[in-house]
Amino acid sequence: MSTAVTVAPTVVRVEAIPVRLRIVNLVEHAGGLSLYAENIIVRVTDSEGAVGTAEATVRPFIYGETVASVMGLYGGPIQELLIGRPIWHRERIRHELDAAFVHNHCAKAALDMAMADLACRHLGTSCHDLFGGWTDRQEVSQLIGIGSPEVNADLCARLRAEHGIKSFKVKMGQGVEKDVAVLERLRREQPDALIYIDANHAYDLPESMRLLRAVRDLDIAWVEEPVSADEPLARSRVAAAGFEILGDESCTTPGEVAREDLAGRSHLVSLKLARTGYILSDRIRGFCESVGASLIVGSQGETGIGTLANLAYTTAHASTSKHPGELAFFLNLEDDLLTEPLKIVDGHLALRDGVGNCVEVDEDKLRHYRIDA
Amino acid sequence: MSTAVTVAPTVVRVEAIPVRLRIVNLVEHAGGLSLYAENIIVRVTDSEGAVGTAEATVRPFIYGETVASVMGLYGGPIQELLIGRPIWHRERIRHELDAAFVHNHCAKAALDMAMADLACRHLGTSCHDLFGGWTDRQEVSQLIGIGSPEVNADLCARLRAEHGIKSFKVKMGQGVEKDVAVLERLRREQPDALIYIDANHAYDLPESMRLLRAVRDLDIAWVEEPVSADEPLARSRVAAAGFEILGDESCTTPGEVAREDLAGRSHLVSLKLARTGYILSDRIRGFCESVGASLIVGSQGETGIGTLANLAYTTAHASTSKHPGELAFFLNLEDDLLTEPLKIVDGHLALRDGVGNCVEVDEDKLRHYRIDA
Repeated sequence: MSTAVTVAPTVVRVEAIPVRLRIVNLVEHAGGLSLYAENIIVRVTDSEGAVGTAEATVRPFIYGETVASVMGLYGGPIQELLIGRPIWHRERIRHELDAAFVHNHCAKAALDMAMADLACRHLGTSCHDLFGGWTDRQEVSQLIGIGSPEVNADLCARLRAEHGIKSFKVKMGQGVEKDVAVLERLRREQPDALIYIDANHAYDLPESMRLLRAVRDLDIAWVEEPVSADEPLARSRVAAAGFEILGDESCTTPGEVAREDLAGRSHLVSLKLARTGYILSDRIRGFCESVGASLIVGSQGETGIGTLANLAYTTAHASTSKHPGELAFFLNLEDDLLTEPLKIVDGHLALRDGVGNCVEVDEDKLRHYRIDA
Repeated sequence: MSTAVTVAPTVVRVEAIPVRLRIVNLVEHAGGLSLYAENIIVRVTDSEGAVGTAEATVRPFIYGETVASVMGLYGGPIQELLIGRPIWHRERIRHELDAAFVHNHCAKAALDMAMADLACRHLGTSCHDLFGGWTDRQEVSQLIGIGSPEVNADLCARLRAEHGIKSFKVKMGQGVEKDVAVLERLRREQPDALIYIDANHAYDLPESMRLLRAVRDLDIAWVEEPVSADEPLARSRVAAAGFEILGDESCTTPGEVAREDLAGRSHLVSLKLARTGYILSDRIRGFCESVGASLIVGSQGETGIGTLANLAYTTAHASTSKHPGELAFFLNLEDDLLTEPLKIVDGHLALRDGVGNCVEVDEDKLRHYRIDA
């Protein structure tokens, strides 16, 4: 079967380019410490010369994917599947990949987003307009790693002074007393900030409940993964105690989102374009809008390339732009790959002029940071 | 707020044109008998001269909307809202209309679809490619009204001989014995047909259960609205008896779909673009794909114009094209408004070449059938 009733451009080239950028503001979390962002830039070229770009950010400890596994998929199966296909076969290609390879979320998501970027460039329109055009800028939040009360409060003060950021996701996991001290200090210094916390599975139920009871008066907006995604009983108990739970590692697919939300174990969903791309994110968004689960657009350590892909989607819809999105990770990188760097003003990222997801890659920097040449 | 970071075309004209076409193959159902299709053709013109077209098909007995109420909305509020707006403000316009006017499903859905058609024409691409490009043709089913076993079996035989149609939605409601006789005759004559039934709320629980038990061996695929949408207890009982329920009148919004499906009172959802447009249909589709509810694209008495808008969406996705769609209603009309009539071949409607939803209106016919001049 084919939809080629009109003559559509076809895919002539697929590239996957691994890059490594140094992280200058180290973000320690319960899962460890990252020194580098090792991501893969995906480019799909069509028969008319248009190029779609996206970024795959692997998370071996969540999805099992590695830079090598992504490169392997792009080196063989994705080439075979894609070359010669009309650029419109986005949903069908996703389906074929799903049928052939379970998991591999980030590799598939990047392809999905690169194909959407390509389609929009072919059409000469921006992704944000085409997806829904809800607003023209997005408030952002920043991840605050594990650290002392002083260091973290100073970092938040600097983010606010320099970028206007006043929404913070604070990593928990250094022990309940220290975590509480971090939050007390931050709340004292920034009474009006939006603060939410992420335990990344560091605690079991009694520890998590101790933490949550201790911070009950600190106006914590919601709590991400207070216990392991594999502990439904413990999660239900946390939910029953009156805290709204943001599902992340527990909510990586539409099916997982449905199960967690309907069981009352998640009330907000971390929508990470880096893992569900545009196609599955639309599915999750439809579900969440239908049942009344809030959406938080989550970070997966993107450079400016992935950030712009996130921004296009986040700004397109009312539900995805309502709460601050985790779109400030790039501030932690020593450099970026865009010709024009991103800039957070007054706590917001603004849409830029352009087609597709508005990514323009600096080819010199790409050459400099690529690790396969 | 505005997304006009690029200079986008703006809406300069919105028209709503009521038309009346005679129904030649009368479809009697438990709600009554329709002699005419009185629909409203919606046209939105942008500052570059592109025109988006869609069709509003009112159903006063389901949604409370009338031709007059749709014309009223288009005559005033929608003009004020739309004129001068960038053509990309589709989701925002939907939201503003929802905030100002509850219900009015069909008026809003037609505007949504006309705006999408306009956007695709501006871009020079087809809606079916842009939405997902899953397949290039769609199997169709036909509604079979209330009638005698002979008349209905002959009609189905003719539909199969002339158009290759072998999927039938048979209206119930003339009394259990007569309904059963209709289904027995049809199943005997067409052992391989897909047959489902629609009681349109004609029966209460005991009657509905009698009917369903009597046809248990006739391979009825699913049953639509076996009892009233307002009778959750009765619906639950029907579901418990082992029949899969297709929700239609009970599932007119994403919230209703979620409630019915999650309560186990519907297992398939009738997705009617005429009532939920593209935006809310995407939301419902996301929900259904996430929880495993099947989708049947339903008819609301569209001419070829609405049928092509349905076809673009149905063919775009795996989930919407899996089962036959109710896209054959136009066969019941004495005429159509397209320059090139639709043709069902081998039980399928094929995509046609073109931009947007591929509708090309015959202006002479539109003048002839319009009822406002």
